[in-house]
Amino acid sequence: MSKLYLVGIGPGSSDYLTAAAINTAGSVDVLVGSQRALDLFPGFEGQTLILRARNMDEMMKKSIYLVDEGKNVAILSTGDPGFSGVLNPILKLRDDLDLEVIPGISSLQLAAARLQIPWDQVNLLTLHGKGNSKIILDFMDNGKPTIVLPDFKVEKLAQFLLENGVDQDRKVAVCERLSYPDERIVNGTLKEIAAMDFTYLCVVIIYETF
Amino acid sequence: MSKLYLVGIGPGSSDYLTAAAINTAGSVDVLVGSQRALDLFPGFEGQTLILRARNMDEMMKKSIYLVDEGKNVAILSTGDPGFSGVLNPILKLRDDLDLEVIPGISSLQLAAARLQIPWDQVNLLTLHGKGNSKIILDFMDNGKPTIVLPDFKVEKLAQFLLENGVDQDRKVAVCERLSYPDERIVNGTLKEIAAMDFTYLCVVIIYETF
Repeated sequence: MSKLYLVGIGPGSSDYLTAAAINTAGSVDVLVGSQRALDLFPGFEGQTLILRARNMDEMMKKSIYLVDEGKNVAILSTGDPGFSGVLNPILKLRDDLDLEVIPGISSLQLAAARLQIPWDQVNLLTLHGKGNSKIILDFMDNGKPTIVLPDFKVEKLAQFLLENGVDQDRKVAVCERLSYPDERIVNGTLKEIAAMDFTYLCVVIIYETF
Repeated sequence: MSKLYLVGIGPGSSDYLTAAAINTAGSVDVLVGSQRALDLFPGFEGQTLILRARNMDEMMKKSIYLVDEGKNVAILSTGDPGFSGVLNPILKLRDDLDLEVIPGISSLQLAAARLQIPWDQVNLLTLHGKGNSKIILDFMDNGKPTIVLPDFKVEKLAQFLLENGVDQDRKVAVCERLSYPDERIVNGTLKEIAAMDFTYLCVVIIYETF
């Protein structure tokens, strides 16, 4: 029987691929992923479908269609499919597929590793696709650091926090393009971060108040 | 300068090792880990130190001593060093070391993958080393599934929950020896789970009430 695999590929560099991800991606008929995800599997000889921000829904439906047609399909998910990844949208589309999830290293794990923060003692939050960032305010005063995947650009999130009364001197770290050669980690106050310029591939850590 | 590496090796099977973990472990003078962790690196030719439940503290101090003596040392951490792993105890022993953390797949991620639960919408909890399980009661009624690494045997945790008023019909899943050939996933009610027998290598999922 044909199957849909959701394969976590880690934050981006091949350093964080697991053997399970490599073996699964090598075993399917169709590989679906962003161009930067597909680039991690240069030897793949089957069909590929390129995911873009604008065709996500269409490509997920097409993946399911191909499984129904008898193909084995793997959707490559940056990070872990189960954390702000493709698992949730796929389950919403269809909950009766033969599905297998291969976990991957989430960028939030690499951020915690780089900053040496034990992440069993933090607030973990994704704002991806949430439309607004209000939910983060619930966590700002609970005495723990918050590791968040922002929905929009980092500076917008910082401005939102400032507008909603978070202390402008609150310590923040931004991990940008983690695992890539141009990876950058910036430490600053909330006010400083709000005035800077970042790309979209960021993890933000808002430290606890002391 | 010599360095201490904390290397996440995933839940146990070599399927979940990353290239970063393999390359780091292959580059050091001394490899420290449980026997089952060391077995993942059969080609290693340097010094090895075997971690056991009873010599954890001694071996961590010895690792730090060896780094001070000029050796590069890697401590192999099951799962992710940052989630219920060696990062926290190492930081408590010494916060001025040249330290690098390599994230790994936590068993809670593999549990979420097997059960197809998006883990950005759950309570994540470790009871390892906590001495008692009271903290879990805070999460039982917040409408989310709870994924927990128990401190004692699963059946003891289930009995604790029953004694503290959690509904005996609450749905629970136990993921035992994840990634090993004898991996087992058991679904049942809290009452059923409390009456069963499990090993120590378990992740427990307590589903939300509906």
